[in-house]
Formats: sequence, C-alpha cells, structure tokens
Amino acid sequence: MTLDTYDKIMMLAKRRGFLYPSFEIYGGSAGFYDYGPMGTRLKENLENLWRKYYLLKDANIEISTPTITLYDVLKASGHVDEFTDLTVDCKQCQTSFKVEDIIDENQTVEEAVANDTVTCPDCGSKLSDAHPVNLMFSTEIGIGKTRDAFLRPETAQGIFTGFHLLYRYAREKLPFGVVQLGKGYRNEVSPRQGPIRMREFSMAEAEIFFDPENKSHELFNEVKNHKLYLFDNVNEMKISMEKAVDEGIINNQALAFYMYMTQSILLDAGVDPKKFRFRKHADDELAHYAKECWDAELFSERFGWVECVGIADRSAYDLNAHITASKTDMYALRRYDEPKRITKKQIVPKMNVLGPEFKQRAGIIKEKLESMDAENIPYPITIKVNNEHINIPDNCYDIEEITETVPGDKFVPHVIEPSYGIDRVLYCLLEHNYYEETKNDELYHKLLLPPSMAPVKVGVFPLISDEKLIKIAKKLDKTFRENDIFTTYDDGGSIGRRYARMDEIGTPFCVTVDFESLDDNEVTIRNRDTTEQQRVPIDEVIKQIKNQLEKK
Amino acid sequence: MTLDTYDKIMMLAKRRGFLYPSFEIYGGSAGFYDYGPMGTRLKENLENLWRKYYLLKDANIEISTPTITLYDVLKASGHVDEFTDLTVDCKQCQTSFKVEDIIDENQTVEEAVANDTVTCPDCGSKLSDAHPVNLMFSTEIGIGKTRDAFLRPETAQGIFTGFHLLYRYAREKLPFGVVQLGKGYRNEVSPRQGPIRMREFSMAEAEIFFDPENKSHELFNEVKNHKLYLFDNVNEMKISMEKAVDEGIINNQALAFYMYMTQSILLDAGVDPKKFRFRKHADDELAHYAKECWDAELFSERFGWVECVGIADRSAYDLNAHITASKTDMYALRRYDEPKRITKKQIVPKMNVLGPEFKQRAGIIKEKLESMDAENIPYPITIKVNNEHINIPDNCYDIEEITETVPGDKFVPHVIEPSYGIDRVLYCLLEHNYYEETKNDELYHKLLLPPSMAPVKVGVFPLISDEKLIKIAKKLDKTFRENDIFTTYDDGGSIGRRYARMDEIGTPFCVTVDFESLDDNEVTIRNRDTTEQQRVPIDEVIKQIKNQLEKK
Repeated sequence: MTLDTYDKIMMLAKRRGFLYPSFEIYGGSAGFYDYGPMGTRLKENLENLWRKYYLLKDANIEISTPTITLYDVLKASGHVDEFTDLTVDCKQCQTSFKVEDIIDENQTVEEAVANDTVTCPDCGSKLSDAHPVNLMFSTEIGIGKTRDAFLRPETAQGIFTGFHLLYRYAREKLPFGVVQLGKGYRNEVSPRQGPIRMREFSMAEAEIFFDPENKSHELFNEVKNHKLYLFDNVNEMKISMEKAVDEGIINNQALAFYMYMTQSILLDAGVDPKKFRFRKHADDELAHYAKECWDAELFSERFGWVECVGIADRSAYDLNAHITASKTDMYALRRYDEPKRITKKQIVPKMNVLGPEFKQRAGIIKEKLESMDAENIPYPITIKVNNEHINIPDNCYDIEEITETVPGDKFVPHVIEPSYGIDRVLYCLLEHNYYEETKNDELYHKLLLPPSMAPVKVGVFPLISDEKLIKIAKKLDKTFRENDIFTTYDDGGSIGRRYARMDEIGTPFCVTVDFESLDDNEVTIRNRDTTEQQRVPIDEVIKQIKNQLEKK
Repeated sequence: MTLDTYDKIMMLAKRRGFLYPSFEIYGGSAGFYDYGPMGTRLKENLENLWRKYYLLKDANIEISTPTITLYDVLKASGHVDEFTDLTVDCKQCQTSFKVEDIIDENQTVEEAVANDTVTCPDCGSKLSDAHPVNLMFSTEIGIGKTRDAFLRPETAQGIFTGFHLLYRYAREKLPFGVVQLGKGYRNEVSPRQGPIRMREFSMAEAEIFFDPENKSHELFNEVKNHKLYLFDNVNEMKISMEKAVDEGIINNQALAFYMYMTQSILLDAGVDPKKFRFRKHADDELAHYAKECWDAELFSERFGWVECVGIADRSAYDLNAHITASKTDMYALRRYDEPKRITKKQIVPKMNVLGPEFKQRAGIIKEKLESMDAENIPYPITIKVNNEHINIPDNCYDIEEITETVPGDKFVPHVIEPSYGIDRVLYCLLEHNYYEETKNDELYHKLLLPPSMAPVKVGVFPLISDEKLIKIAKKLDKTFRENDIFTTYDDGGSIGRRYARMDEIGTPFCVTVDFESLDDNEVTIRNRDTTEQQRVPIDEVIKQIKNQLEKK
C-alpha cells in the first residue's frame, strides 16, 4: 500500500503525540480527535500568536461565553432554520450521507435517487429522498422543567448577544473589536476528512464593529504596501492592499486589513507561501448573512485547497436579528457635534377609549400604534391582530408634536468577521512543514516548524547515561524551564536516535552534556535545520537559545 | 437594601467587564456566565500561572480531548450510574430542587415530604418523593443512526481513556503526569450561587500516575520544609510537609507535593492566606473512587469555606474500570533488572472437540478457558454462558507447561489528581482583593490583584485631550503592546476618573503624558497601591514597568 502525505502526517501525528483518534478504546467516533502533548503545545503556540495580533497589535478585547447556547439565541440568528446539510439516508442500513459527498455535479439528487444511479456507499441499498438536516448538537438545560439548547456552531453569537454591554465597555466608540477563542460544534452527517472536518473543533473569531459609513482602519496606512495573495476565481495575483482597495477588488480598508492580519499570522506560523491564497466567494456562494467574503485557503496534498479562515463582511445581519427577536437596544450612536433639538409627531393612544372598545386586544393595539411612524399615518389606521385587520377610529388616539434633544443618529453597526478554523490550520502546518529524506536506507522525518511554533524548544541530553552527566543535564533542563522554555529531557538510547525523535517533533535545538563538559563547562548546541553543532559555555546557553527563539 | 460583599463584587464584575450573566437578552439562564474582557484576561493569567507550575516546574505533559464524550466512557467510569443528586420535584409547578438545598440536617427527606414540613420553595405546593437525577448534559452524535453521548463532567476521563498512548509517549516510565484545562459540565438541579455553582465551568486537572509501591516525588526534598495550612476537621495547623508526611497526616509525598503546588499557585495568584486552608475529607465524605482527599478551601463572605481545588488519591479506580470495560491493555510494567524466564501452566482449548460439542458457544467457551488461572483449575471446570453453567469435559482442553520471558511485573498505576475549579478560584480572587474606602463621600473601589494577575498592566493617558499629547501617548501605548504588555489607552474624562477606572480593574500602573513631557521627554508613572507618582524618562518607562511586573 502506498501512503500519501496525509497518511504519513497522521501516522507521525499519532506516533509523536500530536493527534490521536478519540475514544479509540471504545471503537472511536468519526469527527473527534484528542490533541496529544505535542499537538496541545502547537495549538497553544498558534493561539498565542493569534492573540498577539488580535489583542496586542490590533487592540481588540477578548471574551469567553458558554458553549451551551439557548435555543432562543440560535433561533434568532437563523441557525435553527438554516444551519443544515442536504442529506439522504439508506433505506436498508439507516446510514445518512451528505448529498454533496456522494452525488456529483452532473446530476440532480432527485434523478440520482429515483434512477438508482447512486445507492448507499456502505451497503448498496436504495437511498431516501434528500432532506435538510440541522447540524447542531442539541441538549436540554435543567431537570424536569427544561429549556432547549444547542452546542454553539460558532463563537460569534456569544459576542453579538452581549453587544450592548461590550459597546458600553468600549466607551461607546466605533470601531471596536471583540474576539473569542474556543470550541465550536457541528454534528456532521458523515465526516470522512480527519482533522479537516471535525464535529468538535477549535475556532478563533473576531467581530469588529464598524460604522457602516466608515470602514476605514486606523492601521491601514502603516501596512497598505503589503502585498496580498489573491484569487478571484479566475486569476491569481499578488497585489498591494492599497491597490486592491482602490480598484475595488477588496471592498474596503477594514476587510483588507484583516486579510493582511490573517496572511501575516499564517505565514508567521509556518504556512508555505506557495500553498496559500485568498479566494473570493462568488455571489451565489455567500452565506445568507454575508455581503463579501474572502477565504484564506491552504493547499493540502489530499484535500486540495482547504478553507481555513473566512473573512466576511456580515453587515448588520446578526445585530438586527437579535434586536428584532429580543427587543434589546443594540444600536450605536453617531454623535452630533452638538445635541439637536428635534420636533416630531407622535401617536398617543387613549387607553380610556381603547380599553372598553377592544378589551384584551387593547394592549397590543396600543403597542402597535406607538410603534407606527407618526410622520406617515395612513387613514384610516388599520392594525393587524392575529390575522384580523382592525380599523382604529380617530377618537382612540391623539397626534401630538413633541420636541426632544437627540445626541446623534442611532444605527446598527456593521461587522467584519475573520473566523479561523484552528484545527485545519494546525493540520496544514504539519503538512507544510513535513520533510522527509532517506538516511541509511531508512526514512528520516523532520518537522521544519518555525521555532516560535515548535512544541518543544530544546532537547536536553547527557551524552551517555552517566550519573555525573545526568546531574548537569537535569540541572540545565530545570533552568531552561525556570526561564519558561519548554524542554524534553532524554537520557535513553543513542544520541542519534534522540536527535531523530526531536527532529520529528520539530524541536529547533538540542543541547548535549558530554565528558568534556565536566572539564570545560561547555555544552554542544545542535541545530535542527543545519544539523550543525556548536560549543557554548553552559552559563550562556540559555541566553543564546532565548535570543534565537525571539528572533523572527 | 444592604449589599453584601458578594453583591458588591458581582456589580463591579458586571460594570467593569469581568462577568456578565449569559443570555440576558433572552431572559438569562441560571448557572451560565460570560467572561467579559477583564474576566477573560484574569482567567488566562490564572491558567498561565497554573501551566507554569504544572508544565514547567513539575514537567508534566498537557493534552486536550473533546468535551463531547461517548456514553461507553462514562458508563465505565461510573458517572452514568453515580453522578447524581437526590432531587424532589414540585407536584404543582414542576420545578426541581436538590434535596440538600431545601432540607436541613434534622429531618429525613421522607419525613419532610410526607409531613409537608418542607414544601416547594417557589409556589408552596406539595413535593414528590426524593429520587436521584443524573447531572450530565446528554446529546447524540450523528444523524439517523446516532450514538449517545454526554458533555464531560470532568476532563480526567479524556486522560484515562488515552493512558496506554500517553504511557508510551512517556517512554513507559513512572511517575508521569498528564494535565488538561478546559470546560466541564454539570446540569445542576437549581443553581443559586452565582459563579460558585455553574453548569458550564472551567477546570484544570492533573492526573499523576504512580507506581502504587512508590508514591515519593522527585522534588519533595527541595520543598519539604514549606508549611501547609491544614484543617483535619478538628484542628487547624500550619505544619511542614515533611512533618505532615512523617506523622501520617498526609498519606504520602506525592499527595503532599501537589498540595504544596496548589497552595503556591493560589497564594501567588492573590488568595488571602488568612482565607485559605486544606481540609481533609472525612471517611464518609470520600468519593467512590478516592482513598484520601484534601480540599483547598477559600473563604467567601457569603458562602463560607468554598471547595476550590480537590487533591485526591484516586488509586487505580479509573484505569481498572476502563481495562474491564474496554479490554484494553492499560497496565504499566515494573521492569526487572534482568528479564526472567518463567515456567507456568496454560489451558489450551481444543477447538476440534469444542466446536462440534458446543456449536456457537464454542468461541466464548474458548475465550473463557484461556483467561482462567491455569495454576488453580477447579475440577470439573464449570463455565457460565448467559446464566447457564456448563461443565467442560476433560477432552476439550490440554494443560501445557510453557516457558516465557517476562520483562517485569504488570500493574495498574495509581493516580493522584489535583482538580481545580477555575471559576471558583477566580471569584474568590475578586473577593479577596476587593478593597473599598470612602473618598469625598463616595465609595472608592480597588482590586489589589498581584500585578502578574492584573488583566491590564498599564493605563496610558494623555493628561488632557490635546493632539500633541495624544500622539505621544498613543505611540507609547503601541510600544507597550509590542512588548506584550496589555494596556488600556484612555483620553476621556478627568485624570482622576481615569485612575479610578484603572483602580477598579486592578491595573497596577498608569502612565500619563503631560505638557512637560513635550519639553523633558519624561512621563509620570502612578502606582495603584501607593498612589505615588514618579517622573521617568519616556525611553525607560517600558523597561522599568517590565522589571516591576516580573518581580514577585
């Protein structure tokens, strides 16, 4: 059997503690992975790099909201109705399949199912008609009197539902951005793409709120000459941010700036620039909430171009949805230089007339009257209550002129959302940095991760298992750790095998204590990429490696 | 209305972005909190401190496993059957209550319900009989053909189910420790204690695997003179680790060492030593899996002593459970100096006799014969298959003597588990560091958090909103952030109000740019605790604050 790159990566990932299939001792379950000791460190390095950009360079704020999410939130956001996959089920073995996974573009699902040109991939039996299936994991909160809930399909809704609090926290100034890192869930119909399509995954999302009249970005000028790798579904181009915005290829500065952030993070993390591009969504591809969207795609040998980050202009879709559903004031204010005195008409319902006339319906009629635009009142006023149209007589209300002080124009902010699939990026990092060569008739593997991403920074070894050397090596290992540098201490097997183990997990440096060290107080630093060795005084080794780790 | 400390903390927490009740715009849901911008930073600072101790000081490895957990895992671990609360329901309004919340110690629940001495706290109606209710959130994986699953009640099971892989990763040497930080879930019957009793919470757990014959710890000697604050349910004492172990107050070195780690982390994080103690579980209080357990308790004004960390000797309970349920080899090996040649008896089933005799049952009989202890064979051999006892005739098997090479003794490791409730610690940090005084007839609040824990390290202000000052202040702010120091830039309101805002979130330093700065290139550093001000050259301010932040 020939192994492809994916197979090789996943074998290395399991052998060296990056990724393990979850629940393996109970038969496993597709779409779930355990991050092992090396995977967890790599993931945290990636998330910390992300935070450096989003919290320190672009000074956004971070929040953390529950993964269990009330039904009401996801009903309002559209996920209850629209977060679905078109699915067919096998009539014999009951297994379900995503239509797009088993039916090619040349036929409709109706034809394919009716003519049996497609049958169950597992048992060959007849398939059901296609039907949409919601992809959220559902659960219930409480005992007895329960409330319906889901595991969140994205972290974003936790930001939108707190917008009014966060806007106040940001001192009611736009733009401001809120980020969240954490788990997202998607009950995939039949996940078959390893860490590319997980049912429980890690996301890093940012929601940057803008005045829709001003999508410029404070830091744009500083970086406008940077070039982005773009693909507009026809041509690939490498083009400066300034030009891309000027020519309307990218709609606005803000969108371009977050594309720049994304490209910088991914390249810093070790993505191969030749396997990186931004692809613009075609109009018919856009999510229901998005005005414009660019995907950062990373190339993978088995899966082709994989969407790893989506940078979307979600406009005011979500805030509007929550304003409508929850009746919360989630508006922002565009302040006038001076507050304005404004005179306007207002409908004032007369409850003493409405009450006797409309009984229980008087309350709802009052509310509807008050919410009407008093500048444009139809005559007669007709109000719909439970499908019945009711004419409201003139004596039920007054029209008054009122004067009020208005500090500015209320509006619903727009939002630009960069949304990162951390697990996908992580898989691609392994693939892009995987290197193999044949050494003494054996395959030799290296992970050429940037030192800042490497799970372990230094391997610390005594040359052989001698007590005097072990003592020095263990002390050195401890000192590295006291300096916040992750190490692996290893005194087992030949030095060559120990180097090899470190190369396989991408450790940039190994430090070996040998018998000479006892005399000259020097140790050997071995470099992963060059395999060069260098003698360094033991007192200086930590400082020297620290400097090299901080270098870009 | 008089506010107690809890009320004051929670008001400050909401006002300043530490904690918000979740889903508030949809009516909220008890037991869920959003971490706001300040809460998220504080939580991450706490978790990073935790990692410093558990990953760098005590070189354990970290993994990260799914929150959704297969039924099989939690059936084996005992959670399906034992993770319950005794509950009563109101017969009228259907609300459920935890028995221990509404019935005091002087009566049994049976009496209380029968005699109506306790009725529904919400509506006063009659209550049902008490019955256990499982506290796990349940969900289903997949579409159509689904598998039952739960949200994990603890992160620990993700470590136990991967033990065989992690043991191999650790090069098959004991002791070694595996940690996990992440969400845990507990569908509380009726949570009414704010962030002390959440339905979705953050945990940090470590599982340190030991040879049961050797629960010493490599680092014990280094720290054995440290004193621990102990409470054995009768007496409080401050006693050295060495003495506590020698006198058997703490069972072993390993347990004492992880108590030391816990005490150090909590005190470093800013817990008030006067509000800290370890309390030993009484025998009748121990969880079904625990041999000995100490709780780190933190004192809270409203809730009294709150269990924030549990440090338990779980013995071999969990690994044994998963070995039995999954039949996976999860043993460790105590190696002999030299492999031993061992001669032993073995039962060899004869399938050519068993097959015709027992048909479909031959397979299971073969398995059971092979798993019998051949040194102590009863005569005749009786095997139980589906409740039927079957005698196995002699001609169905041979007894052979075999010789094999054995590298060591197989055994199931014991585990010491320090388990931290991050949210509880975080709430207590707010309470222990809360300080108020009356200033000009107004309450003035400070959070006296250790600088390392403070969400924002530096407030950067122009003295007034003047363009020249703003420019310098913004540049300084940016330079701080480039040095990985979290700042808040603020040019709104009087300088006194800006200091006050920073004091309320615990910011240790404020730096102000004033008109003198334009001439002398100096800025003012203001210290939160002393309110002292100091002029410092602008080129040195970052270095100086960095030094102070790194100081303990």
